[in-house]
Amino acid sequence: MANYVFGIDVGGTSVKCGLFQTDGTLLEKWEIPTRTENGGSEILPDIAKSVKAKMAEKGIAADDVAGVGIDVPGPVNDKGELSIAVNLNWGYKNIVKELSDELGGMAVKAANDANAAALGEMWAGGGKGSKNLVMVTLGTGVGGGIIVDGKIVAGAHGAGGEVGHACVEPEEEAVCNCGNHGCLEQMTSATGIVRLAKKYLASHDTPSSLRERGESISAKAVFDALKEGDAAAEAIVQEFSEYLGRALAVFACVVDPEVIVVGGGVSKAGQILIDGVAKYYREAAFIACKDTPIVLASLGNDAGIYGAAKMLID
Amino acid sequence: MANYVFGIDVGGTSVKCGLFQTDGTLLEKWEIPTRTENGGSEILPDIAKSVKAKMAEKGIAADDVAGVGIDVPGPVNDKGELSIAVNLNWGYKNIVKELSDELGGMAVKAANDANAAALGEMWAGGGKGSKNLVMVTLGTGVGGGIIVDGKIVAGAHGAGGEVGHACVEPEEEAVCNCGNHGCLEQMTSATGIVRLAKKYLASHDTPSSLRERGESISAKAVFDALKEGDAAAEAIVQEFSEYLGRALAVFACVVDPEVIVVGGGVSKAGQILIDGVAKYYREAAFIACKDTPIVLASLGNDAGIYGAAKMLID
Repeated sequence: MANYVFGIDVGGTSVKCGLFQTDGTLLEKWEIPTRTENGGSEILPDIAKSVKAKMAEKGIAADDVAGVGIDVPGPVNDKGELSIAVNLNWGYKNIVKELSDELGGMAVKAANDANAAALGEMWAGGGKGSKNLVMVTLGTGVGGGIIVDGKIVAGAHGAGGEVGHACVEPEEEAVCNCGNHGCLEQMTSATGIVRLAKKYLASHDTPSSLRERGESISAKAVFDALKEGDAAAEAIVQEFSEYLGRALAVFACVVDPEVIVVGGGVSKAGQILIDGVAKYYREAAFIACKDTPIVLASLGNDAGIYGAAKMLID
Repeated sequence: MANYVFGIDVGGTSVKCGLFQTDGTLLEKWEIPTRTENGGSEILPDIAKSVKAKMAEKGIAADDVAGVGIDVPGPVNDKGELSIAVNLNWGYKNIVKELSDELGGMAVKAANDANAAALGEMWAGGGKGSKNLVMVTLGTGVGGGIIVDGKIVAGAHGAGGEVGHACVEPEEEAVCNCGNHGCLEQMTSATGIVRLAKKYLASHDTPSSLRERGESISAKAVFDALKEGDAAAEAIVQEFSEYLGRALAVFACVVDPEVIVVGGGVSKAGQILIDGVAKYYREAAFIACKDTPIVLASLGNDAGIYGAAKMLID
């Protein structure tokens, strides 16, 4: 039984690397730059070099490493094949095979970054102790990950957990980045909340501290105003909460998770966000799922390396 | 390696039993009555007797049987525990343990009936060849099942695949059997379609053969009228198709299946139903999932015994 495992989280500007014990203890983390030039051809070799250097530094033998888990910003199927990762200048890539070859045949598993974050939160974060989880990540966009029986649901096209593109408002006329209309991402991402806020302020006379911000309004400003009792912020967050709570209730009808984890930058608003969402979730949820806990993610930017590493451990 | 496996599908009036080869060939099927008296205490002993009698009749040894799979009309978790099955007069029951004890320790697995039907359709029906599937069953109610990596997603409360209670119309005022409002079941079950039809006919002047039926209108009558070019039936089926197609698109964002299977009595309308639903599915689906095939279930009432048996075979 190996004692170590690596978790690698590839972003558009830097690669986060983690060396873990197989019991989930993070021993060390570091970053290397993501070299996207030449079609990103150096990214995997750079990662392999960094892993090998860390093993040499620590005196870790190859047979004491369970393997290397890697996540990337793009759709990865359950065979570890990526179809495209625009931010890395990658097209189709068999990540598992290429990285394993660079590492002398070491075990490698690959996943989408949001899916890995969900697995990380299950292993060591907000969903610790569960094996079935829905995670939604509220950032610039809305991502997500579904964990069933301790494993990522990658999906037939690597689109498992793409819950940000669930249509929650068929009548919406604005177009989502994905080309559809009325996606959850358009309502509950950081930019989506700003959109809801601007729409609300333009169509209501409610006095609000948010008006002074004009164009510089942000999701954080909306939640800050809510905490100060701002009536417009209350209405805006209510709309956000309705969309997200109802959507989570639908997802729960599909996979009936033990726990729902909310992460991403927007979730820094804290428990007040969870309370609002939970209210609408419980209204709309199927009776058997009404008490499913909704919790904050707790690993922040480390969720990816945790989840990537966990893929190698049963 | 055992050659035989039993699949048992327990309904409120009869128990369907199937003897299969482990390669999926159905050798024989038969029914026994469901004795619901005395809290349904005889149901599992009756099943055990019937299985043992069939083994004796065919000269099948216990070690040549992979096990017995059983499905029931109620929520079953991934340990094979039922919380309640009203139609069987059962409350909490550890089905796996009780039936295995009756069978001298033989391997037993248990599932919800709609979930087993989904697994059956994956093994030998409309979803044959896939390992990741969403099934929706349009009957008196709307049930469903989710298969990930060849296994039923039972869910933390046995509510995996309870897609009939996804809220698709938050503004709906009529109450669903589950106590919520605007469930998919209220729009797309056999009774839901009748409800849509009555509402449509009451609020439009469109001439329609459906009007002659008065109160005796049925989902079948609506689809029959559609096939005859009835304009009101077209509008009613369009509304049904919008609800179901959009809901399936949301489910696909969650688990990204290889195939979506539509079964149940309403699906006897055939390909014209699939075509209507697929149109709205493709409009609303995330780009990676737009081409996911939507197909008709093909096992009819045998889906349950197939899926129950399949649980014992990897």
